[in-house]
Amino acid sequence: MSGEDAPAQQQNAVDQKQETKPAEEPKAEPPKTESAEAAATPAATTEKAPEEETFTYRALVLTGYGGYDKVKLQVKKGKPALKAGEVLVRVKVCGLNFADLMARQGLYDRLPSPPVTPGMECSGVVEAVGEEVTDRKVGDKVMVLNRFGLWQEVAVVPASHTFLIPDGMSFEEAAAFPVNYITAYLMLFDFGNLRPNQSVLVHAAAGGVGIAATQLCKTVKDVTVFGTASASKHEAISQGGVTHAIDYRTKDYVEEVRKISPKGLDIILDPLGGSDTHKAYNLLKPMGKLITYGAANMLAGQRKNLIAVAKNWYHQFSIHTLSLIQGNKSVCGFHLGYLDGEMELITQAMSTILDLYKQGKVKPRIDSTWHLEQVGDAMRKMQERNNIGKVILTTEPMPEEEKKEEAKKEDKKEDKKKEDKKKDDKKKDDGKKEEKKDDKKKEEPKKEEKKEEPKKEEEKNEEAKKEEK
Amino acid sequence: MSGEDAPAQQQNAVDQKQETKPAEEPKAEPPKTESAEAAATPAATTEKAPEEETFTYRALVLTGYGGYDKVKLQVKKGKPALKAGEVLVRVKVCGLNFADLMARQGLYDRLPSPPVTPGMECSGVVEAVGEEVTDRKVGDKVMVLNRFGLWQEVAVVPASHTFLIPDGMSFEEAAAFPVNYITAYLMLFDFGNLRPNQSVLVHAAAGGVGIAATQLCKTVKDVTVFGTASASKHEAISQGGVTHAIDYRTKDYVEEVRKISPKGLDIILDPLGGSDTHKAYNLLKPMGKLITYGAANMLAGQRKNLIAVAKNWYHQFSIHTLSLIQGNKSVCGFHLGYLDGEMELITQAMSTILDLYKQGKVKPRIDSTWHLEQVGDAMRKMQERNNIGKVILTTEPMPEEEKKEEAKKEDKKEDKKKEDKKKDDKKKDDGKKEEKKDDKKKEEPKKEEKKEEPKKEEEKNEEAKKEEK
Repeated sequence: MSGEDAPAQQQNAVDQKQETKPAEEPKAEPPKTESAEAAATPAATTEKAPEEETFTYRALVLTGYGGYDKVKLQVKKGKPALKAGEVLVRVKVCGLNFADLMARQGLYDRLPSPPVTPGMECSGVVEAVGEEVTDRKVGDKVMVLNRFGLWQEVAVVPASHTFLIPDGMSFEEAAAFPVNYITAYLMLFDFGNLRPNQSVLVHAAAGGVGIAATQLCKTVKDVTVFGTASASKHEAISQGGVTHAIDYRTKDYVEEVRKISPKGLDIILDPLGGSDTHKAYNLLKPMGKLITYGAANMLAGQRKNLIAVAKNWYHQFSIHTLSLIQGNKSVCGFHLGYLDGEMELITQAMSTILDLYKQGKVKPRIDSTWHLEQVGDAMRKMQERNNIGKVILTTEPMPEEEKKEEAKKEDKKEDKKKEDKKKDDKKKDDGKKEEKKDDKKKEEPKKEEKKEEPKKEEEKNEEAKKEEK
Repeated sequence: MSGEDAPAQQQNAVDQKQETKPAEEPKAEPPKTESAEAAATPAATTEKAPEEETFTYRALVLTGYGGYDKVKLQVKKGKPALKAGEVLVRVKVCGLNFADLMARQGLYDRLPSPPVTPGMECSGVVEAVGEEVTDRKVGDKVMVLNRFGLWQEVAVVPASHTFLIPDGMSFEEAAAFPVNYITAYLMLFDFGNLRPNQSVLVHAAAGGVGIAATQLCKTVKDVTVFGTASASKHEAISQGGVTHAIDYRTKDYVEEVRKISPKGLDIILDPLGGSDTHKAYNLLKPMGKLITYGAANMLAGQRKNLIAVAKNWYHQFSIHTLSLIQGNKSVCGFHLGYLDGEMELITQAMSTILDLYKQGKVKPRIDSTWHLEQVGDAMRKMQERNNIGKVILTTEPMPEEEKKEEAKKEDKKEDKKKEDKKKDDKKKDDGKKEEKKDDKKKEEPKKEEKKEEPKKEEEKNEEAKKEEK
């Protein structure tokens, strides 16, 4: 863990500077036309010989804003250069986040314009270190947090954006850790100032942030957690620490909370935006804190839905100070993607959360693991809220048999695309939930075509559940 | 301190219930026409004989919205009844707050319509306890926090609104304590979540809340306090713990802060409202908290100034969640006057702050002490920002000589009133600061007429300063 053997690597890093295009700006690199399959084997080798020529790696690239198919698997050529303070990480596992879904639709301004590699977090092994890096060395297992560019086999990032993976934490867990846990931690303990006996509402309690927030709430004495999720997830979130599980699809969560906590709540974490932020505000106790950290209500369908976006804007919460004063209330906004200048703060938070991990008080729950080739399905699972816990991507090569299956599905998908597009254009709907239902119906045929897929997912869920127990 | 001898008092309280009008609703009582002078002596006696008839006490009554002269000293007759859970307090000292100034102009909706006795805090001695009161007894020295009704010699309040005065704390300090310290404490440590090494901006750092906030900041390691005040107060606030004193009258406080803390601030306490809230918001660091707790900018002149009020409304800060999210910022509103349902929270805060007092870490600073008859001048001193620390009223009878002087001044004031009124009506001004200057000029003649007044104030200030040392 010491940086003593770093200098040996620095020379290497200097050599690499002959490459001028950093991995974070893939748009500047000429994307190779060769298929991902052909490149999989060379990327996995680590021979150094004439690296500038032979070094290749697979990368997911957002080629334009739109549906799940806008994220393509491409092969990059040439070892990325390392600047001072940077490390090159051989990526093992990547985490998916809601911001990635927003980004694909062009709704997240922290991602540069396409073509660009998305991905805010991953785990992997340090393969090279740049000059002035003293606290990381080749072979270190790390988790990485970056504004973008981590959904690829090789990533170059500032060493300060990496965190050593503690003993006993798998690469899967490590890839599921940074975004969700730092987000939940800073919201609850910095803005929220969570203390014993308080009450917290966690929306999407079966999602990555929801599970992290629930676990963190339970580290404080006698905290009551209200968690929303569809009924099928209630068992899981209750086991995870949610005190009162609420099925937001069949019940009015405001009424349900009031039945149990008539005076309202101390802290509300709001990833939804729009009219749900208004509800949250009214549900706060005096001295209560509303922390809004997303606009999931904007995501209706796989492509940018202008009606949903407009509705969200129209209903966007705006608050006058007089109302805040008379209510003794606090409204906070949080997004880790806009905090990238604050690595000191983040490192401090990370250190505290990793201590909690080591004490066994928090532990990421993995919903499902997907190959890079399956990123579309992985995103769909998350966007359709079918996950319990984190959706992750592995950079492990896909077995040949699975690849063939995927290829067949891809062909069929292509055939259906135009048809889908027409349906999408026709769709006019003014109810968010109805919107979602429509979307599902439309995509149902696809699911039926790939019957093996859901089965595999279920198996994985089972595994994940066992892992939890 | 135990409630064991309380039952003996309860009988007394039951007897008093024949009186149906509680002291907190003075409008329901027929105000006596006799002058305050005549009643001063009887009120000071404590003989019980036929109390319903002979019990009198002096009370300040807001008779209508307007200038300083709208608060009149009246004499009330009849001992107020005690309900279960209430105590009767013989008031020694009353604290003045900005909310009282707002209330006089009709800008504070927590005060019932005139005629009504204002006053949110006082200190005194428990003189009777109602049924079910177990933790207060006759003779207890207490400080009191109430929505209104404490600027009088006798106040009936719920026992839960009283706090035992610790050994060594004077009645003056006790009357200066609750509102300022609870406000500063909850803002800094509940909403603000103040931690070591952070930076805080305290506006009006020489005011009651400002001084309390500065002292509380200094209880946390390495906190940097930026404090605004006019230059003449800089020595005092620097001695009180302000790290960087800023003269807001001659300098742009935003620029001054940026020079020292280019990234901005962690916490900003904003009692001003209007455009200053916008400035504060922009001056926040990521994860910064803006806590707005007033609209002092609305107070321009002694009567409601519609232009100032309209300007404040026009410039009132309104914030969209998207901006909060992208900035990772928090906006909170605080006002103790709207927290009266949360006595548990307040009692907890009070307990912590009183511990700090006992440890010598916080101590109220008294600016000046005034007789009830001088309430107008006391309010003026505060509103014109001529105070350093707390302005308080004592219920001690005014010496006969001083009374005569006051009476002369009153007569002269009456003569000038119509003239003033005309000037006031004519006044059309669109600049807040110019407004204030005008106001001062207009009131200058009055000050000259009562030459002994300013002198006395200065003496008192000197005393207050000595007390601090």
